Amino acid sequence: MSRVRVVEVGPRDGLQNEPTAVATAVKLELIARLAAAGLRWIEPTAFVSPRWVPQMADHAELLAALEQTPGMHYPVLVPNLQGLERALEAGAREIAVFTAASESFTRRNINCGIDESLARFAPVIERAGARDIPVRGYVSCALGCPYEGAIAPTAVARVAERLAALGCAEISLGDTIGTGTPGQARAMVETVAERVPMARLAAHFHDTYGQALANLHAVIEAGVRTVDASVAGLGGCPYARGASGNVATEEVVYMLHGLGFDTGVDLPALVETARWIGERLGRPPSRLARALAPAD
Amino acid sequence: MSRVRVVEVGPRDGLQNEPTAVATAVKLELIARLAAAGLRWIEPTAFVSPRWVPQMADHAELLAALEQTPGMHYPVLVPNLQGLERALEAGAREIAVFTAASESFTRRNINCGIDESLARFAPVIERAGARDIPVRGYVSCALGCPYEGAIAPTAVARVAERLAALGCAEISLGDTIGTGTPGQARAMVETVAERVPMARLAAHFHDTYGQALANLHAVIEAGVRTVDASVAGLGGCPYARGASGNVATEEVVYMLHGLGFDTGVDLPALVETARWIGERLGRPPSRLARALAPAD
Repeated sequence: MSRVRVVEVGPRDGLQNEPTAVATAVKLELIARLAAAGLRWIEPTAFVSPRWVPQMADHAELLAALEQTPGMHYPVLVPNLQGLERALEAGAREIAVFTAASESFTRRNINCGIDESLARFAPVIERAGARDIPVRGYVSCALGCPYEGAIAPTAVARVAERLAALGCAEISLGDTIGTGTPGQARAMVETVAERVPMARLAAHFHDTYGQALANLHAVIEAGVRTVDASVAGLGGCPYARGASGNVATEEVVYMLHGLGFDTGVDLPALVETARWIGERLGRPPSRLARALAPAD
Repeated sequence: MSRVRVVEVGPRDGLQNEPTAVATAVKLELIARLAAAGLRWIEPTAFVSPRWVPQMADHAELLAALEQTPGMHYPVLVPNLQGLERALEAGAREIAVFTAASESFTRRNINCGIDESLARFAPVIERAGARDIPVRGYVSCALGCPYEGAIAPTAVARVAERLAALGCAEISLGDTIGTGTPGQARAMVETVAERVPMARLAAHFHDTYGQALANLHAVIEAGVRTVDASVAGLGGCPYARGASGNVATEEVVYMLHGLGFDTGVDLPALVETARWIGERLGRPPSRLARALAPAD
């Protein structure tokens, strides 16, 4: 059976946009439940300034408290060398860096252009590489930008290729605003795969327009075998009006199992985790979690 | 540009499960708005007993009040000859009949087996044919049954073939409980297409497990060019626990336009209609309607 690797981004990409503070203990329990459900790649936090992302202010405490057992991968987002140093001090063994295929988005989101963001990441990736720390590179706005609209697949490919050349082991292509449709998603991924091998690409699609699962199916048909998702659909992009969150991990896993892929995930345990965190945060359950709810 | 025909089933399949009565005037306004948004196939009501489906008790009044302008198609669901006669009296020009690929579901839903349901429809379809009334045939449980679980694609094909042989111009294949995934949906449709030409098939998928758009994309890739959907995702199947409704027409149309298909639908007008009926019924908006909501 063919395998699809699911990268759970709920604790970071999901929770970072939650309006109310989530206790470190709740985050740790969420991560423990996700690991118990069979997820092996979980992005736990970001070493960004608490001034910009207060929800991630407990990053050092959280990472230090995580038991990094063999086989578990906990990449943490770092924006710069300072973030890398703090992450390493707290025990990070994998990291992720973040840029975009849109010049305008990069400027508004991380306050510099694409070139400058790559220049900033070069020493981060190099230092990580020197310590055998794998680096994941995010390319957001891969299917559209809230400021520029359409983004050419070749623009995405250029940024992905440069991240790969800098040393990123994996490139995660993000439909940050969720406007993509399946044909576009497939064309984008195939264009990127001309520069970076398909095996090193991940799809990170948001469900803001309801298209995420259809888009994921399209890129899986194209050969993508790594998919980012967020339990219970936690999160969303603060720049996309009415953003309704990331694609729900449980709906992705259900589809993947139906397609005959092995994910290593125990779906009922994942659905139970989705229900648990949704209740904690007062979020509505995903469609799948509602459908599989125990009878009253 | 290739065309996909969208059959709007919200006023019938959507509203029939609404717990509170919807006024005939609201239904008529909904249909008028859908037509103004460019939908040309709208299922307005069902000529079933008000004892079983109270929400459709106004079928004769509703149909009589509909202005059936040229180019508009308003197929009404009829369960038997009596229903057909009443529909014709009220001015029906197109009808639909309903059976399932699952013996258990058919027994519980329409109180007879598949063979008996087909025998019951034979004179209905024949009489309709004699009056040049096109008949649409629904085959529900095409991707799974709440009582029997998995349904073999060949079982779906057999029922579809028999409906076609009886005179149904079009066969709508329903994932009534919404459990299907894209590979399964495509395989089912391709199996049915060995018996009934693809051009006569429609996909009617529910979004209960979040899979509907991915499944629709898969069958569109396989050649299906008619898709059923329900504005605002109205409806759902009362037999599927936690059913979260039909697939939202606006999310389907958005995907189809993104794939380069012409639907004839004005998406902003459709989204506005979805918002309007959602507010009327106190339903949450679809993800797409939320994403496209006007700024506060």
